[in-house]
Amino acid sequence: MPNRIEIYDTTLRDGAQGPGVKFSPDDQLKVVSELDALGVQYIEGGQPASNPKAVDLFRRAKTLRLKHAKMVAFGSTRHPRTAVEDDDNMRALLEAETEYVTIFAKSSPLHAHEVLGVSLETNLKLIRESMAFLKKHDRRVIVDAEHFFDGYDIDPAYALKVLTCAWEHGAELLALCDTNGGHVPHQIEAITRLVCDHFPKTKIGIHTHNDSGCAAANSLVAVHAGARHVQGTINGYGERTGNANLCSVIPSLQLKMGYKVLSAAQLARLTQVSHLVAELANMTPRDHEPYVGRDAFTHKAGMHADAVIKVKTSYEHIDPTLVGNTTHVTVSEMAGRSSLLRKAAEFGIALDKDTPETKQILGKIKKLESEGYEFEGADASLELIMRKATGRYRAFFTTLSYHADVNQYRFDQPGVSEATVKIQMANGDIMHTVAEGHGPVDALNNAMRKALDPAYPELKEVHLEDYKVRIIDGKLATSAFTRVLIESSDKGGVKWNTVGVSENIITASYIALLDSIEYKLLKSRGHK
Amino acid sequence: MPNRIEIYDTTLRDGAQGPGVKFSPDDQLKVVSELDALGVQYIEGGQPASNPKAVDLFRRAKTLRLKHAKMVAFGSTRHPRTAVEDDDNMRALLEAETEYVTIFAKSSPLHAHEVLGVSLETNLKLIRESMAFLKKHDRRVIVDAEHFFDGYDIDPAYALKVLTCAWEHGAELLALCDTNGGHVPHQIEAITRLVCDHFPKTKIGIHTHNDSGCAAANSLVAVHAGARHVQGTINGYGERTGNANLCSVIPSLQLKMGYKVLSAAQLARLTQVSHLVAELANMTPRDHEPYVGRDAFTHKAGMHADAVIKVKTSYEHIDPTLVGNTTHVTVSEMAGRSSLLRKAAEFGIALDKDTPETKQILGKIKKLESEGYEFEGADASLELIMRKATGRYRAFFTTLSYHADVNQYRFDQPGVSEATVKIQMANGDIMHTVAEGHGPVDALNNAMRKALDPAYPELKEVHLEDYKVRIIDGKLATSAFTRVLIESSDKGGVKWNTVGVSENIITASYIALLDSIEYKLLKSRGHK
Repeated sequence: MPNRIEIYDTTLRDGAQGPGVKFSPDDQLKVVSELDALGVQYIEGGQPASNPKAVDLFRRAKTLRLKHAKMVAFGSTRHPRTAVEDDDNMRALLEAETEYVTIFAKSSPLHAHEVLGVSLETNLKLIRESMAFLKKHDRRVIVDAEHFFDGYDIDPAYALKVLTCAWEHGAELLALCDTNGGHVPHQIEAITRLVCDHFPKTKIGIHTHNDSGCAAANSLVAVHAGARHVQGTINGYGERTGNANLCSVIPSLQLKMGYKVLSAAQLARLTQVSHLVAELANMTPRDHEPYVGRDAFTHKAGMHADAVIKVKTSYEHIDPTLVGNTTHVTVSEMAGRSSLLRKAAEFGIALDKDTPETKQILGKIKKLESEGYEFEGADASLELIMRKATGRYRAFFTTLSYHADVNQYRFDQPGVSEATVKIQMANGDIMHTVAEGHGPVDALNNAMRKALDPAYPELKEVHLEDYKVRIIDGKLATSAFTRVLIESSDKGGVKWNTVGVSENIITASYIALLDSIEYKLLKSRGHK
Repeated sequence: MPNRIEIYDTTLRDGAQGPGVKFSPDDQLKVVSELDALGVQYIEGGQPASNPKAVDLFRRAKTLRLKHAKMVAFGSTRHPRTAVEDDDNMRALLEAETEYVTIFAKSSPLHAHEVLGVSLETNLKLIRESMAFLKKHDRRVIVDAEHFFDGYDIDPAYALKVLTCAWEHGAELLALCDTNGGHVPHQIEAITRLVCDHFPKTKIGIHTHNDSGCAAANSLVAVHAGARHVQGTINGYGERTGNANLCSVIPSLQLKMGYKVLSAAQLARLTQVSHLVAELANMTPRDHEPYVGRDAFTHKAGMHADAVIKVKTSYEHIDPTLVGNTTHVTVSEMAGRSSLLRKAAEFGIALDKDTPETKQILGKIKKLESEGYEFEGADASLELIMRKATGRYRAFFTTLSYHADVNQYRFDQPGVSEATVKIQMANGDIMHTVAEGHGPVDALNNAMRKALDPAYPELKEVHLEDYKVRIIDGKLATSAFTRVLIESSDKGGVKWNTVGVSENIITASYIALLDSIEYKLLKSRGHK
């Protein structure tokens, strides 16, 4: 058996079914880029028949010139009561214009009979005709055998017949799905081994769900039994309890079982990809996740923390840098100095390792991080901190005060949001402006623009692309801290990201807006 | 092999090492009672030598008259430089006055040499003398072989020698620990099988951590290989990525693998125990947890939700009532009328398929969804809509107007948030109140409570558990719509979730707060 394992990501399809998971069209495209850079082989973009927006994603993904991954469209076999040529699902699959297509085929008698409402023979016919149709249109086809393990439990001969049917009609790969997620490792291992023995020349894949708490482990035992293709999602997002978490499966396959999955450099991106996808999905990262979670290498117990210092490997199962994570011995610890210097170089700011400036910047970042700031997705704010500390900065204006309010004069009528700002310009002029808006933050943005646009007309080009709010400690409910992330762009298509944190969402938003505007002015007018 | 599996709970020791996990002494006692009612065999109460409060717990636990479980004190083998009679750890273990004691013994040469700083022979001597001391004081002793799997990888003969030494000196049970959590299922299975073959007359236990994402699965494969005792924690709490989650392991052993672990009635308490322990530990329950999570049997996709109604077992791996959980079909754009009726039945509201009421509710939900509402995580708001449409509702008060503002009088000083509400009570009284807060939403919440608490003192019990903000179309930036989700709880541990949407975050928050309060009042005072 070759020791190379293929990764098939379904974050944008199965993952997007996860409670609370939502990707905007732009976010989907960012996820595709990240997955490609991570080095997965397949990216399932969605099910065009049930989600017309998926077709847009496939179209837009073509402009990305992916280096590693193939986009895959997903759909069912043809509808039992529609000719294959007239089937909306089949047509939608073609519209995606992908080289690869995945169809899911019922492989359990229960589901064929009672859910699809067809005979076992008709189910095979649906598979046959769907395969023929897709092959006729030159698609390479992956077949997901839905409910395969449940089907195998009920009727092993039929479950194998479904696979044989798909294989004989041109499937490139047969993925065995534990759709209900109800199987445990020794069952998955035994059945997968049997299938691999039955189809010695076929690439077998595994697709698991976490309903028994074994999704990642079931993927590993399936590979141990001969599977060479693993389907899953970033952070294990998915319906109910989620899918196999690729952020656990990939490093376990590569670092524990010796399979070749990603390059070392790609694997070192894993933590970053996990956090970015969480950010895009607007999900709070789960700190206790294996390998990539904030606490995965955090040592709390006195004894363990001491031992970790004594013998690095004594309480850490891997070197965390292999997956882009770090050891934390105390609760709050900041990113290392070397990554800070790397980042500064990226911004064109030369920093030396042991200068007072570097120490000052490190101290500032550490303080802000302890207040809830995070600079992973806010390079422009980070650059401003470095510029201020190194004198590569000038103040174009100073905020003296501001105010925002919402008046719901009558509960059944739209409220009115109004904001004022008092800003002192570089020449000493005071601009005191007021504006309304679609909410208090919008009103504040409008008032700032009214004050600044006359002196700095290039700000008219600035468009706020995205606005995200994260409650940092949800348990504190309405008195929790709020982190606001803003993405801005200008006419040239340049984008930058800024962050603000406060117990007050208005103040957090103001800080992020301020950074966005200062960044633009520094870029357009320079620091001297 | 007998098919009975013993459960050894270490929530109060290993679990309490988990980031954020905190139990007060009273909470610890409640956890002990719950675990006993659940039917576990052993409850590890703590390590008396490192935590003097643990001795109090052991003393207080004696007053509980446990029906099923034995309390167990935990500690290391004697200190290398202290005679066993003078060893503080050994003495603290005796002070706990438990029938059972667990000691952990180093079974990896790396840890004996480099962490403990003793020769392999001395390590065996520490085990021997510690065992003899505890046996002399009539303790029944469980030995946790720390780093057993890591030790076995380095020096299998020595790892087995540690077990033999413990066994020959009176250990009742040998627990194999994957202390770093770094092993994957086929490794755990092979080594456990080998140990079970080596000690055919000894009860072998398994203790796993989740660093490779396999803790629950590793427990299952160890049992498959012959282990008959499983150590873990409720909700998988524990250092780093956590311990084996008993809320996954127990039902998998019993319902999937046919072992006898708990009675059916005990197993049906599992969801309740999970949520209560989370509450006591001050942790937000993880909705995606297998078996016991709120989303474990939640169906979202239209196709799945329809299929679940058609064939109950088609997309559910077990009957959720077996573990005390329930099926939820979320009402979303994708789901149809049948799931709405099901949801109504869940709320105790009888709706017929084709009545005007049902049409009205569907129309209302559709309209709200098009405005950005989502009822997936907001059952209480959904129930209020149904109650209003069917007359099973009464208004306890009416909001006339409100106002919230943020004044940043000086940019370098903290801002001041103030809110006012004008509310008409059911008896016609007008309450006009003002309050400050940690931000405008907190101020609004405080003003509402000030107006309503005098008439409805039960609102004082209501705690806001979680507050989430989602920007619906980030591309509209600061003028995008905002969805606010609020989770509330009362003293009885009941939780409910409400939602509000507006282009204005303050208004969205007010709507969600209002629903939370109305829901509580309807539950406490009824609709007539």
